[in-house]
Amino acid sequence: MQRYFLSEPYETKEQYTITGENYHHIVRVMRMEPKQQVYLVFSDRLAIIAEIVDVTEEAVYLREISKEQAEKELPVNVTIACGYPKGDKLEWVVQKGTELGSHEFIGFPAKSSVVKWDHKKLAKKTERLKKIATEAAEQSHRQFAPDIVLLEKEQELISIFSNYDKVLIAYEESAKSGERSSFATALSELAVGASILIIFGPEGGFSPTEIEVFQEHGGILCGLGPRILRAETAPLYVLSAISYQFELV
Amino acid sequence: MQRYFLSEPYETKEQYTITGENYHHIVRVMRMEPKQQVYLVFSDRLAIIAEIVDVTEEAVYLREISKEQAEKELPVNVTIACGYPKGDKLEWVVQKGTELGSHEFIGFPAKSSVVKWDHKKLAKKTERLKKIATEAAEQSHRQFAPDIVLLEKEQELISIFSNYDKVLIAYEESAKSGERSSFATALSELAVGASILIIFGPEGGFSPTEIEVFQEHGGILCGLGPRILRAETAPLYVLSAISYQFELV
Repeated sequence: MQRYFLSEPYETKEQYTITGENYHHIVRVMRMEPKQQVYLVFSDRLAIIAEIVDVTEEAVYLREISKEQAEKELPVNVTIACGYPKGDKLEWVVQKGTELGSHEFIGFPAKSSVVKWDHKKLAKKTERLKKIATEAAEQSHRQFAPDIVLLEKEQELISIFSNYDKVLIAYEESAKSGERSSFATALSELAVGASILIIFGPEGGFSPTEIEVFQEHGGILCGLGPRILRAETAPLYVLSAISYQFELV
Repeated sequence: MQRYFLSEPYETKEQYTITGENYHHIVRVMRMEPKQQVYLVFSDRLAIIAEIVDVTEEAVYLREISKEQAEKELPVNVTIACGYPKGDKLEWVVQKGTELGSHEFIGFPAKSSVVKWDHKKLAKKTERLKKIATEAAEQSHRQFAPDIVLLEKEQELISIFSNYDKVLIAYEESAKSGERSSFATALSELAVGASILIIFGPEGGFSPTEIEVFQEHGGILCGLGPRILRAETAPLYVLSAISYQFELV
């Protein structure tokens, strides 16, 4: 069943009115008619099953049938921050990372980032990535479409460390310390509802200075196993491991 | 440092001789010279650090400096079997899945697979995927380059179930049963060195009949969390979770 993300929070209503892009998709693309049902997902992560009651030239009108019971979101809020990688890798991380439950994506220019994006380019990129995230959220049946934040300075990333309960840096140099890895230890310390920021370098990785600054501001270095993962693969490893730890074990 | 995979098992030798594609890469691509070092990875997963002693028109001659100590391979052998997906998704699964530690990749025509590949096409595909797997194994610093097996009939897949200690089927319908998921339970029952076959459907998923047959032959249905993962994402989720469970926790 199709899912549509709405920008407003849920309130009980006689009827829900849909216009704009969602209207276009329901009426022109899916050619839906009265009596057919869709999921409406509200900005506060509440989702309902709704039935179409009327379709006009401007709007689709629906009524609530029931609430979606199943919890589709990770019990912790994971923010994936990537040093700008080459080509379309960021788009790819956003699509796959959204399927895997990421709550937010941040892009930032790391020292070894090759691409240099100005303000205008970043605004365009943000729009494009938001679209990719929303489509992936619909397809993976999520109740939340991840936010996209593209920064102009690495310093801006460091300045928001304090907004998160934990900040981890994926760093291939950091090996296992004793029985468990620092990544597994960090996860075991996270309470349900906690927020975690995990930072990944671009293809060239991080410089010792960058790592130092991250650590000075409370970032914890984490290895992700003995194999070298590419810039675009490491975020998917982390999200999969977090889902496994919090949703399956 | 560059890694080169050799087809023969390790034996102690005065000198190791490299020809063919690896020779071409060392001499023509990397333009390496005597005294430079590379990793040589043998078919029995043993890797050594070797120093170039001589380069001729036909061969590179190297001597062993030391063995590679670190263990880079997953402690369980994971085989990823994918119902043939559309486009280049299989190539993509092989590249990323190799980074994440897969031991073997099997492709097979599931009932809902759209692509139909004949014998000739499958042979060509196999060669291409082997190349992708070897390159990814080199880049991710592995000690083993995964095998590629592309089957012509789904029945051939079922007939090899008995070669594995456990056979799992990724199936979105199967929910959590009690505290742990059947996937986490299956992993907790795996001993180091065990072999596990995990089967993934194409975009259209599996038919009830296919699922029935898999189960009749000992396959265990596993859900992978509450979000719907794409055909090409689910194998990466599974490999990441296995690495986390066996290498980090």
